[in-house]
This record gives sequence, structure tokens and C-alpha cells, in this order.
Amino acid sequence: MEFNVNSIPHYREIDGAHGIYDEGNVPVKKTVTLLERQMTMNKMLPSLEEAIRRVGLTDGMTISFHHHFRNGDFVVNMVMDTIAKMGIRNLVLAASSLSDIHEPLIEHIKNGVVTHVETSGLRGKLAEVISHGLMEFPVVFRSHGGRAAAIETGELHIDVAFLGAPSCDPYGNANGYNRDEDNGSCCGSLGYAKLDAIKADKCVIITDHIVPFPNAPFGIPESQVDYVVKVDSVGDPKGIMSGATRYTKNPKELLIAKTAADVIEASGYFYQGFSMQMGSGGASLATARFLRDKMLAKGIKCSFALGGITGQIVSMHEEGLIKKILDVQSFDIVAANSLKNNRFHQQIDASYYASYVNRGSAVNQLDFVVLSALEVDVNFDVNVLTGSDGIIRGAIGGHPDTAAGASLSVVVVPLLRGRIPCVVEKVNTVVTPGRTIDVVVTDQGVAVNPNRPEIREKLIAAGIQVFSIEQLKARAERIVGVPEPIKYEDRIVGVVMYRDNTVIDVIRKIGEVEL
Amino acid sequence: MEFNVNSIPHYREIDGAHGIYDEGNVPVKKTVTLLERQMTMNKMLPSLEEAIRRVGLTDGMTISFHHHFRNGDFVVNMVMDTIAKMGIRNLVLAASSLSDIHEPLIEHIKNGVVTHVETSGLRGKLAEVISHGLMEFPVVFRSHGGRAAAIETGELHIDVAFLGAPSCDPYGNANGYNRDEDNGSCCGSLGYAKLDAIKADKCVIITDHIVPFPNAPFGIPESQVDYVVKVDSVGDPKGIMSGATRYTKNPKELLIAKTAADVIEASGYFYQGFSMQMGSGGASLATARFLRDKMLAKGIKCSFALGGITGQIVSMHEEGLIKKILDVQSFDIVAANSLKNNRFHQQIDASYYASYVNRGSAVNQLDFVVLSALEVDVNFDVNVLTGSDGIIRGAIGGHPDTAAGASLSVVVVPLLRGRIPCVVEKVNTVVTPGRTIDVVVTDQGVAVNPNRPEIREKLIAAGIQVFSIEQLKARAERIVGVPEPIKYEDRIVGVVMYRDNTVIDVIRKIGEVEL
Repeated sequence: MEFNVNSIPHYREIDGAHGIYDEGNVPVKKTVTLLERQMTMNKMLPSLEEAIRRVGLTDGMTISFHHHFRNGDFVVNMVMDTIAKMGIRNLVLAASSLSDIHEPLIEHIKNGVVTHVETSGLRGKLAEVISHGLMEFPVVFRSHGGRAAAIETGELHIDVAFLGAPSCDPYGNANGYNRDEDNGSCCGSLGYAKLDAIKADKCVIITDHIVPFPNAPFGIPESQVDYVVKVDSVGDPKGIMSGATRYTKNPKELLIAKTAADVIEASGYFYQGFSMQMGSGGASLATARFLRDKMLAKGIKCSFALGGITGQIVSMHEEGLIKKILDVQSFDIVAANSLKNNRFHQQIDASYYASYVNRGSAVNQLDFVVLSALEVDVNFDVNVLTGSDGIIRGAIGGHPDTAAGASLSVVVVPLLRGRIPCVVEKVNTVVTPGRTIDVVVTDQGVAVNPNRPEIREKLIAAGIQVFSIEQLKARAERIVGVPEPIKYEDRIVGVVMYRDNTVIDVIRKIGEVEL
Repeated sequence: MEFNVNSIPHYREIDGAHGIYDEGNVPVKKTVTLLERQMTMNKMLPSLEEAIRRVGLTDGMTISFHHHFRNGDFVVNMVMDTIAKMGIRNLVLAASSLSDIHEPLIEHIKNGVVTHVETSGLRGKLAEVISHGLMEFPVVFRSHGGRAAAIETGELHIDVAFLGAPSCDPYGNANGYNRDEDNGSCCGSLGYAKLDAIKADKCVIITDHIVPFPNAPFGIPESQVDYVVKVDSVGDPKGIMSGATRYTKNPKELLIAKTAADVIEASGYFYQGFSMQMGSGGASLATARFLRDKMLAKGIKCSFALGGITGQIVSMHEEGLIKKILDVQSFDIVAANSLKNNRFHQQIDASYYASYVNRGSAVNQLDFVVLSALEVDVNFDVNVLTGSDGIIRGAIGGHPDTAAGASLSVVVVPLLRGRIPCVVEKVNTVVTPGRTIDVVVTDQGVAVNPNRPEIREKLIAAGIQVFSIEQLKARAERIVGVPEPIKYEDRIVGVVMYRDNTVIDVIRKIGEVEL
């Protein structure tokens, strides 16, 4: 007998999770071998439908998903299609984030299968129709840390977590990569999924790669998993994960990144043993490249890099410039492989990363973070969620969490995007409060939050020209004028929660659209 | 500025765990560097007394400890001495196990500081006086899996966990070894401590080695830790951990081990990809050595080894004979270093190891386990807790958990210890029920549980002489006679819980002793 996933018959009506089976209330010891048992008595179910039936999903419950498959994710759509077919309605869909690929949710919302959505972000057609009033109840947007906290406090109670995994054994030990071979899908860290598995009442792993027990080291342990469903594919590898994240070649972004690195060097937070995080976005990720040059020049090393991890961070780790990596989300295949192979590249969960209700999370140990923005205003408030047309097209991510936790938060943003000013009087949507933003770096000048006068002095001492944020705004307006205000209607389509899960802003409806 | 643990001033009255400090209800962003912050604003307290005060320990609460420091542990005694001095009384002491070194608990029990004890085992003077009636309320003995389950269900609620750790950073990321250097104490896995950290209301890490943040990979994350106390020494390295566990040279134990390996080979559970656990004890651990020869001879490999891990298991892993190691407790320094360095040697917690209330634990994936015994009786019931004089001198450990989980449980026991028969009519104390024991291997013959006739047939087919358990008992009695029954009094001094936390036996008081 050999371990062969294709010959695994599916779940029998016995308690595959435990060693002792009750036969008419008499405990009977198992006698089969591990190999036989994996093939005959396990947590594997023949279909999603069977899993949904067995976890007892009913109208009105809350289900969760992770976004480690990004825009390659097949899991949300396949689960929701199955639920819809089964006639279950009125669900709360609480995803760690949603992407363009989740457009089919529109139909499920229209049909009453999903009546409330919680997420870090929305993009594409789904975001657009929600901005135009698709949902009766506003979407709740939470940061990664705020979501973790909401789960921990019970504010967000998950009835069933449906968690995609690139590899899983027949008992539910799941991983973001394939431990034993190099084929199959791969997403690296399962950081956001880990907390859902811990806290959900029921947990279903959906995988396209069954491996022999034990799939160790595991991201999610069998002890938290109820059922495993094997599907043909959990996602499109191209959408799940790119190769190494490429440096931006955009000259404006490179200029911003170089300036951000100069700002960090001058700020006092670039010292032997500093800690850092680079948020997503071309200029933000490129900042690491310029910091690397400065580290080599000065003989300075980084004690740890946090967050969404890229191949850039990994290569700095492997050349000895970054001592440890704390990885809640792997942004590219190089990062995912490093998580698999590098001993000091540790997978962390969303709570450890950024929750404010536990006893200390990693964002608070950051010296600096470099963050992107759609807009920043004269109060240093930042919007990463709604576009210049007021339509939702982004995600909160860890933006407010890291901005609050880091001693120095640097927002990198072009002064203009086309004819749109990015430094404005008042952002459309406040996602990250200005009191937690320290420096704004644009391609046309740097501004320092007045509540950090010591930073301003250091930058000036280092020869960096510092403007007031109003000067930057005026400069943008001189070039492109003041845009017309967006015509919102009264109705609220989104509620933006700050990381402590109080409301920081609301998103209102944009004119009609044909649904 | 350099990271220097000796120059760390202790905890200031601010919330060192979080990035944002409240000054009169106004959140204020931190501006110090990580390095400065580690040195000035952290979870470190100047003394155990201060930690006990801050966690709010009061009369009647339940406190917990782990036993990864074994007989080298200083933590239990130093915490209890401090608590006693502070005048706190009537505590429940719930340790994962207790050893000879914990004799000073006698005074704390006499003085009413501790009025109830839960543990896996007791040894030495403490065990002796408890057997003689020291405590008014019986000691509750639980298996490792039963304790995990009791913690998970809330049957055992821990108010404060005091967890010793060989290394910890100023925010509480704790480990069973020192990640950055090779000096200091070392215990390997913190498997039993991990669950206490997750579930206790308050968690204090006690360490003798403060390292810079982040002490990653970590066994216990900062997000679960309230305070850190640095002490001169958490334990005696010689008592915490030996060098590589040495093979027994006792010929009787070697004979038993060789026979056990023959039994396993013939049983049907020795096949390509089998799984195994070796319990503590000379014959049990030595069985791995004979299995190794058979694996090499037959070209068979083990998919995983579970449990208390020894250097023997590690060397088989490193030579490619054992694919993965799941380690809840590292028995020697070789195992501890392997946990640190080998990618497929994974630290697991007590729940994952053996709890029956989660959704599947690793003991249930065992093909076979080899277990020691003090006595076994004609019902195959096993005693590992009380000596032939009826006095407590052992620990349940994972005995009933693995016996129930494994498809084949092999008990290795000498027929006689001196003039004491080890196969008897009725064991003093039932720890592991006979229905979960499959084979008893002595130096003078093998017996198979009648509920496993197929095993008996296979052994006979392989040329192994199989006796009935009654024949083994008779043989022992022919040599040394039937011992006088132990003179117990009525009073119950210990309650033995089966792994499902139902009572399986009680331990009664032995004659008077001067206290």
C-alpha cells in the first residue's frame, strides 16, 4: 500500500479525528495502520456541499475567508456558489480582504445569499457596485489588526472559516506551501488564516494538494480543523503570487523612494539594530533598495523586518543585513520559499502582527514603516480606500496599525496622479488618522507633521528641504487646480473602523448605476 | 547605545506592551527607538514579588507551572517562596508535573499556602508525605492529554501561569533554548507551557537570559505574555537536561527492548512510513535502537516520531530514517539542539499532542508506542504512579493518551524488580486501562491482550513465544511468591483521572508518618 491521494475514498461516518471510535457507546481502539487510516478514516469530505452540510451552516451565520491567494483566489467564489445552490441565505461574509476576482459576489448579494460584508478592502466591479449602493447594510472595513482584535473580543464571531491551503494532510495540518515537493500552488504565510482557524466555531480547509500526515511544520494544526475538502485548484498561481516582486522602474516612484530613504536615514531611526516594515506599492517597496545601500555604506544592520514580505527583504536577510523576518503575508514566491527554508523567517498570525487587544503585537516594535497612500490631507489624515471619484478601490491592510505602532511613519505618495492632486484639503475617506503619520514624502517635497518638530529639525540639519503640508497642497493646486467635490448621496455604503474598532469615517453612496 | 541586559532599568508605569501610550486618555505615539524602548519600556519587572502583585494574585486562585526543567527546576520553589512571604494562601497549584526538587512545597502545604495540587506526577519526599496524608484535599493526577483537555474545557481554569524559559526578550517572546548564543540553560520544547500561556488569564515568564527583540522563532509569543522577570537562574542545567540520553547497559532492559522490537516487527505495524513513540525508561528508549537495525535491514523509514524526544530519535532523523519529529518535550540536549536547528523537528503543544477534546491530536496518529510500567495486571491495567509499597513515586505523563491513540501499545516491564513481581493480579493503581494495552513484553515472556487475537497470531507466526498474562503472573509468583497486600487506610490522598477526565482510580493513605 502506498500513500496515494487519488485512491483515498472519502470520509466515513466515524470520528476520524480521534483514535478511539464509539461503537454503540463502547470505545473501541483503532487497529488500522496510520497509512490505512489516512486513506480510509480522515477528515476528507467528497465535496464542499458535504462540508457545508456537516458544519451546520444555516441562514444568518458568519463565514470567513483569507486573502493570501490575492487576485488568484478561487476559494471564495467556489464556496459561495455552493452555498447559494444549497439555498442558504442572509450570511455575513467576513474576509480578511477581497479582490477583483470576487466580482461574482455581486450576484450572491443581489440574491440575498450575502447580506453583510466585512473586509479590509474591495476592488474592481464589486467595489464599484457597492459604492453605488448595492448593499442595504454598509460594508464594514477593518484594518488587519482591527479585524484580529474584533475576532479576539468576539465583536466578529466566525461561525465557519473556509480556509484555502496549498497543502494539507488528511487530518487538516495545513500549510501555505508544499513541504514535500515543489509543485502546486504556494502562498507562503497563512498569517491571516491562522487566527480564523483558532477562533472559528468550525474550520474547513480547502486544498488542491493532499500530502501524507504529518504536513509539518504546519501553519494551521489539525487540532483546529474539522474537515478537509480537496478541489481541483484553490487558485490561479499567477494571481496568487508573482515571481520576485520587481523594482518599480517608474522614475517618479524611484525619486520618492530615494527621498524616503534619505528621510529615514536623517530621522534618527536608522541605527544599528533598527526595525522596519515596507507597505505594498512601488515607491514603498523600492525604499528598501535605497536603504540597503545606506546599510552597506554605514555597516548598519536591521534586527527584524515585519509584515508583508518580499524577495527584496529576503535577499537582505540572506546577505545578513536583516537578522529576522516576521511574516504575516508573503508577497512573492521568493518570500514564500524563504518562509519554508529560512530558520529565522517566522510565520506570525494576524493577532501577533497587529492586534491592539492582546498583550503586545509586533507593529509596536517598529522603528519605521513606509506606507503608500491614495491621498493625504493637511491634517495628515490618509486615505487608502476610495479613489478620487469617491469609489472604493483599495484596502486598509495594516496601514493604521503600523502607522500607530511605528515610531516613524513615512507616507510615500506622488504629489499628483495625472490631473488629480494627492495632497488635499480633506481626504475623501479617513483611514489612518494624521496624529499617527509623521512624514509625507512626495516627488515634489517633504512635509513633517507639526507634532514631530524634532524630526523636522533633523531633516533640515541633513539638508533635506522641508515644506509645510499646506505648501505641498498649494503646489498641487497650482498645477492642477482644486478638483470638484465628489457628489455623494446621503446613504452610507461603507463604515471605516479604526484599529480599535471605533468608527473613523463612513463612505457614502455615489450616484446611481444600473444593477 | 547597545543592547545590554544589565543596564535595563525595570518596568515603568506605562503600557510597555503597546505602541501608543495614554497620557490622560489622549493616545500619544511612541517616538523612542526600538533599542531605547526595549531598555526602558518593556514588560520586565524587578522582582517576582512585583509580578505577583501586578497580576493580582489573591487567595484561592489557581497557578500553573511546566515541568520542562524536570528535576533541575528552580521556578516552582522560588515562586512559591515569594507567594508564601507575601501572605497569599489557599492556592491551587496546577503543575504539568512535579519532581524531587519540589520538596519545599511540603512547608507551603503545611502552612496553607497551597491547599490543592494538580499534577501528572509526584516524586521523592513530597510524594511520600502526600501518600501519608499531608493534604486534606486529594491530589488530582491527570495525564498530559487530560490536563490539556481540562484546560481547554475550563475544568482547570488557570488564573496565573508562571512559566520558566531559557531565553526571553523584553516583551515576552520566550523560548526553550537560546536562539542567539549557545550559553545558558536549555530545555528544548516548551510544549506543556505553550497551552498554559494561551489559556491562563495572566502569564509571567521567568527567565535567566534576556535577549533582544524579537526572540524569534519563539515557543511562546509576546502577545500572550503579561510580564517578564529576570532571575539569576531558572534551574540547574544538570537537572534540566542531560547530554544525549545514554543507552541502558542493563542486560535485562536490553533483552526486553530487543523483544519489544521483535514484537513490533512481527505485529504488522512495522511498514514503510510507520509512526512511533518511545516512552521514557531504559527498555522503552532502547527499543528504538533495535528498531533502527531492522529499519536499515529492511529499508523501512518512519514518517514521524512523536512525544518526548531523545538524541536517539534525532540521530535517526538526521540519518534519514525518521522523516519528521513532533516534539512536546525534549528529553536531552541533543533533542533540544535539534529542535533549534532541524527544520522538520517541530515543537507542538500539549493539546496538539494528546488532548481528546480538540479536533484531532497527534497521539491518534501513532502506529505504535512503547511504554514503561511499574506494574501490569491480568486485566492489562497498568500502574505507573504508585510503588509496590503503595507510595506515590511516578507520573502519568502521556501513558494513557498514547496507549489509547496508538494502534499497537507495547508495555515493557521486567517480570520482577528484586523480590517484587511486576505482573500481578491487580495493580495498586489503575492509570492506563487494559483495554488500551495490546502487548506486555517482559524479560521472561510476552503476553498479548485477548482482545487482539490477530496480534497474537502474528507473533506466533514470527516464532515469538506468547504466554497468557496469567501465565506470566504465575511465573512471577512462583519465583517470589505473592506479596502481602498493602495496608491502606480509607482516606483518599490522590484521585487518578483518565484522559477524558473521569476518575479511573483513587490512591489511599498509607500509615502515619511524622510530618
